[in-house]
Amino acid sequence: MKKVGIIMGSDSDLPVVEKAIKVLKDFDVPYEVHVYSAHRTPKEAKAFAELARENNFGVIICAAGMAAHLAGAFAANTTLPVIGIPVKSAALDGMDALLSTVQMPTGIPVATVAINGAANAAFLAVQILGVADTELAKKLNDRRVSDAKAVLEKDAAVSAQFNN
Amino acid sequence: MKKVGIIMGSDSDLPVVEKAIKVLKDFDVPYEVHVYSAHRTPKEAKAFAELARENNFGVIICAAGMAAHLAGAFAANTTLPVIGIPVKSAALDGMDALLSTVQMPTGIPVATVAINGAANAAFLAVQILGVADTELAKKLNDRRVSDAKAVLEKDAAVSAQFNN
Amino acid sequence: MKKVGIIMGSDSDLPVVEKAIKVLKDFDVPYEVHVYSAHRTPKEAKAFAELARENNFGVIICAAGMAAHLAGAFAANTTLPVIGIPVKSAALDGMDALLSTVQMPTGIPVATVAINGAANAAFLAVQILGVADTELAKKLNDRRVSDAKAVLEKDAAVSAQFNN
Amino acid sequence: MKKVGIIMGSDSDLPVVEKAIKVLKDFDVPYEVHVYSAHRTPKEAKAFAELARENNFGVIICAAGMAAHLAGAFAANTTLPVIGIPVKSAALDGMDALLSTVQMPTGIPVATVAINGAANAAFLAVQILGVADTELAKKLNDRRVSDAKAVLEKDAAVSAQFNN
Amino acid sequence: MKKVGIIMGSDSDLPVVEKAIKVLKDFDVPYEVHVYSAHRTPKEAKAFAELARENNFGVIICAAGMAAHLAGAFAANTTLPVIGIPVKSAALDGMDALLSTVQMPTGIPVATVAINGAANAAFLAVQILGVADTELAKKLNDRRVSDAKAVLEKDAAVSAQFNN
Amino acid sequence: MKKVGIIMGSDSDLPVVEKAIKVLKDFDVPYEVHVYSAHRTPKEAKAFAELARENNFGVIICAAGMAAHLAGAFAANTTLPVIGIPVKSAALDGMDALLSTVQMPTGIPVATVAINGAANAAFLAVQILGVADTELAKKLNDRRVSDAKAVLEKDAAVSAQFNN
Amino acid sequence: MKKVGIIMGSDSDLPVVEKAIKVLKDFDVPYEVHVYSAHRTPKEAKAFAELARENNFGVIICAAGMAAHLAGAFAANTTLPVIGIPVKSAALDGMDALLSTVQMPTGIPVATVAINGAANAAFLAVQILGVADTELAKKLNDRRVSDAKAVLEKDAAVSAQFNN
Amino acid sequence: MKKVGIIMGSDSDLPVVEKAIKVLKDFDVPYEVHVYSAHRTPKEAKAFAELARENNFGVIICAAGMAAHLAGAFAANTTLPVIGIPVKSAALDGMDALLSTVQMPTGIPVATVAINGAANAAFLAVQILGVADTELAKKLNDRRVSDAKAVLEKDAAVSAQFNN
Repeated sequence: MKKVGIIMGSDSDLPVVEKAIKVLKDFDVPYEVHVYSAHRTPKEAKAFAELARENNFGVIICAAGMAAHLAGAFAANTTLPVIGIPVKSAALDGMDALLSTVQMPTGIPVATVAINGAANAAFLAVQILGVADTELAKKLNDRRVSDAKAVLEKDAAVSAQFNN
Repeated sequence: MKKVGIIMGSDSDLPVVEKAIKVLKDFDVPYEVHVYSAHRTPKEAKAFAELARENNFGVIICAAGMAAHLAGAFAANTTLPVIGIPVKSAALDGMDALLSTVQMPTGIPVATVAINGAANAAFLAVQILGVADTELAKKLNDRRVSDAKAVLEKDAAVSAQFNN
Repeated sequence: MKKVGIIMGSDSDLPVVEKAIKVLKDFDVPYEVHVYSAHRTPKEAKAFAELARENNFGVIICAAGMAAHLAGAFAANTTLPVIGIPVKSAALDGMDALLSTVQMPTGIPVATVAINGAANAAFLAVQILGVADTELAKKLNDRRVSDAKAVLEKDAAVSAQFNN
Repeated sequence: MKKVGIIMGSDSDLPVVEKAIKVLKDFDVPYEVHVYSAHRTPKEAKAFAELARENNFGVIICAAGMAAHLAGAFAANTTLPVIGIPVKSAALDGMDALLSTVQMPTGIPVATVAINGAANAAFLAVQILGVADTELAKKLNDRRVSDAKAVLEKDAAVSAQFNN
Repeated sequence: MKKVGIIMGSDSDLPVVEKAIKVLKDFDVPYEVHVYSAHRTPKEAKAFAELARENNFGVIICAAGMAAHLAGAFAANTTLPVIGIPVKSAALDGMDALLSTVQMPTGIPVATVAINGAANAAFLAVQILGVADTELAKKLNDRRVSDAKAVLEKDAAVSAQFNN
Repeated sequence: MKKVGIIMGSDSDLPVVEKAIKVLKDFDVPYEVHVYSAHRTPKEAKAFAELARENNFGVIICAAGMAAHLAGAFAANTTLPVIGIPVKSAALDGMDALLSTVQMPTGIPVATVAINGAANAAFLAVQILGVADTELAKKLNDRRVSDAKAVLEKDAAVSAQFNN
Repeated sequence: MKKVGIIMGSDSDLPVVEKAIKVLKDFDVPYEVHVYSAHRTPKEAKAFAELARENNFGVIICAAGMAAHLAGAFAANTTLPVIGIPVKSAALDGMDALLSTVQMPTGIPVATVAINGAANAAFLAVQILGVADTELAKKLNDRRVSDAKAVLEKDAAVSAQFNN
Repeated sequence: MKKVGIIMGSDSDLPVVEKAIKVLKDFDVPYEVHVYSAHRTPKEAKAFAELARENNFGVIICAAGMAAHLAGAFAANTTLPVIGIPVKSAALDGMDALLSTVQMPTGIPVATVAINGAANAAFLAVQILGVADTELAKKLNDRRVSDAKAVLEKDAAVSAQFNN
């Protein structure tokens, strides 16, 4: 199976990124985690992106805050789908990272998820790999079923508490 | 090859959506275009989403403005990747559609592109289909090369005009 | 008397929603509380909405955060008035939920109250039921009188402290 | 049947408000239109609000721009449901009117609809009157059906143009 | 000397408002503090505003949060200058109160100061009373001199710590 | 009577500022209009501000766009009340000018009015001069009466058109 | 004298960028203009940046819109000062470009000017070159004097029109 | 070597400013730190700016919050490059300071860095001085190398933890 590359711009993004790792583990999707900065290690970032397809990656997830160029820099150097996680920083509540990630110019898309939405970045990566992978598609379906069940159990608990 | 479903919430979104259609044509990727509203035709929207995978769709693109729930409603009813195009409406400059599209809850991601970024929605769809399709990956690469060439030709023109 | 349905998108919204429950209790208005997610349990949400009128509900209150589609999804499946409470989440200070709730397309309104404004959602529900219910209208009036009195008592306390 | 009061803060809001009038006409709901300013005619605004219930109004719709206090001023003087339409003005794209209308304090809700969303204000008013009015509820249902049909006709047209 | 009226929409605004009281005390300007709500006690608010001039008030300061209509409601009922303090609440960082206070329609201005800027509301009130009061003008000047001195002392301390 | 100084940061602000001039003329309040830039003519701006009180000015109105420092620069050099008009420029819809004008530090208030709210800047100036001027206060009252009458005439026209 | 490099992300930015070229011409500062895209021609952008210092550039100006990564990509590949011009695009009024340009991570600053502020980017470049260049410093001073004179002439014209 | 002037608007900005001091120390660039307020000590601020060039300063860094005029006021009184640090205050998350700093009018640029981006203000100052200083340019290069190394070490640590 193709791997998912998870890149964070700084190791301070790790608490956010760990939610993505957990989801990939849940789906037994292979992954590789790295710290590369679009600005401080542009060469390594570029090299990873350029070689990602031949290194058997299928999707790249990039997490970065502030003027979050990481996902865009990866997208510029590969034609694999790149998923961007805008990370909330000390100011502006993540709006800077969201706009820096999502407002990409024509030809170089970044598939952007919610601010700090690392779990969803991983779900999206699994969905992308699941387009052509029946087993993964089935696992995704099962997860939806169990997620729905969890909501309904909470509904039952709330109903028991408030309704009569 | 799997098809791309392009759904718009209102036919007034067609001028935006046509940029996506053009890109898919460029790549000879099959597609189907529809007008479904998450709110006015919830049943039809749901039915399309639920059957999308077995109807041989690989990716769904949804374009909607204002409280843009269309992509989210599709994402809730399929495990195929759903790409959201936030459409700029009469007020708020598209910020309402952007936040309504991108800030999805855990488990139901929407791959969001730029406001009115329909071309990029299509590029992203092609990239997703290209993960497992060598020929499509090659075409994407070629397009990058020709896009770069176009920029460099503009650079040459600007250089000729301003530098000496 | 018709009931008020109170739906929250996640049980983490309960601390917000409890302020609505308290107000309905104050007015002896019957209610039912549920946890349904527009995205994780779309089927149950739709079923509840479609049957709400015949199940003797008069108003539906929906509380959700982020790309808050819950109220809109309910509004799409009933012609009862739907009140939306935008819930403040970890990022963006509730602006995402506000815009996702209030910017609804023509034909499918959501009566939106303030961010985390659950008490007011309940007051609005009571006011809606009170349009045709003289006794409820009188209770609303009494509450206004007692709320005003509470403000004037605070004014008296502040006056005693600062004015002489 | 109870009437809907439609109040605009300035007659420059009339082009927006006319969309509400049209919807009420469609539903044969009686209405009365007025120009009152919360700031320039506070007395008349207050008098109208205080007498609204005994003058057989069931719902009040208020449209105002900028620091839009009109709906709040009406809500402070009646316990009927008050619907607020934030009107887009020359600056800030309607965000000022939206926040001034929706962020009401506890006890005095305003049922806020989208910026310039006058049609939805009227739909919401009809839905409120329809809680206890079976005929109106049926008309609302019919309208949903015809609105859905209109969308599906557009879908057919778009399908015919783009799909084959 | 004319008095300054200080009105807060809720006694929870008192910690903000106390900074205004302190400044007025520093200048020996008489004041009166009240809690009136534009929405919960509209009658008392209106009565205070209408009688303010004949009750020897020269300026009114109003502090309120969220859809902050208090200053506007006072301004609608007096031709004395009304100063608005937008108070930061639980959501939106005070932006709602700022826009609700400052974006007033023609003819009914509110002199708006910074979010939570109660001290400056009082300084502005003193400046307004000082237009025609030589002694107050002199005190304002003295305060500027002492404020400048305080900055320069801090400069000296910082210089001593960092420069050599 | 004391004069009102009207300063604009650039003569491109004149169309906005002329609404202030018109109001001052309506009230027969003497005024002086100038173009001074806080950044391009800091010396002249400072000199005007420092001498304003002894040159018989009672209030200063400053209109500026973008990083609008003009009002703040005047406020730093006089203890007369300074009214700031944030002017809408080519980008950001006037939000930059609003925040640059209103968010002043303690001790140096700027009485901020709405974006492009030049008429209200003048009304506020008249109100400030009217604190100690019975005749001006009477004129302000008369204007309120005639403004209210104008609204009620529009109400009559709208009523005649829509109500029966 | 060292040259100024002016890079635009797309030749559609030329109308903005021409204001920078004009200022550099006014100061007889040599420059070179190019079209390079951080995303479509990352290689050429990188090469230009890496060689800029040895190619006798002293400052780089980058103009780009949307998720404006151009200035950041240049800054990552040179230690020359990089000035960023956020360009206003079809949506979001330039706020996306501003945040993408200014919110750079530690170690890789971009000297950001106003949205579409190309003239100021050039003034800043001249000021940077003028730190160590007495003649350029003198020219800058002369320009300030003539700019001030232009303002004062406008003041004279406005004074003649409105004051007497 | 020329000095860097570091000015803060209030000594409460010192925790932010100290990050700039640290970077300048790392590069052995001489500096001077001061507390001057554009509004409370306009005279001293102006004097410092006017004499900065002849007092051997090469760059001025200004840090201020809210309606942050400090950098603009300095820029108006010197033709040296002025770098602005928008400081995050109690409300609005630094957006007020950012817009007040960056949106400068033509002719008076402020080189703006990220909100609270004091370290980058210092890096930018060093880069400006390094345009004409080979040794400083070399030090900047070395720092980039060591910063990249630090990122790659973190990558190694993360790789060791998550990849196998």
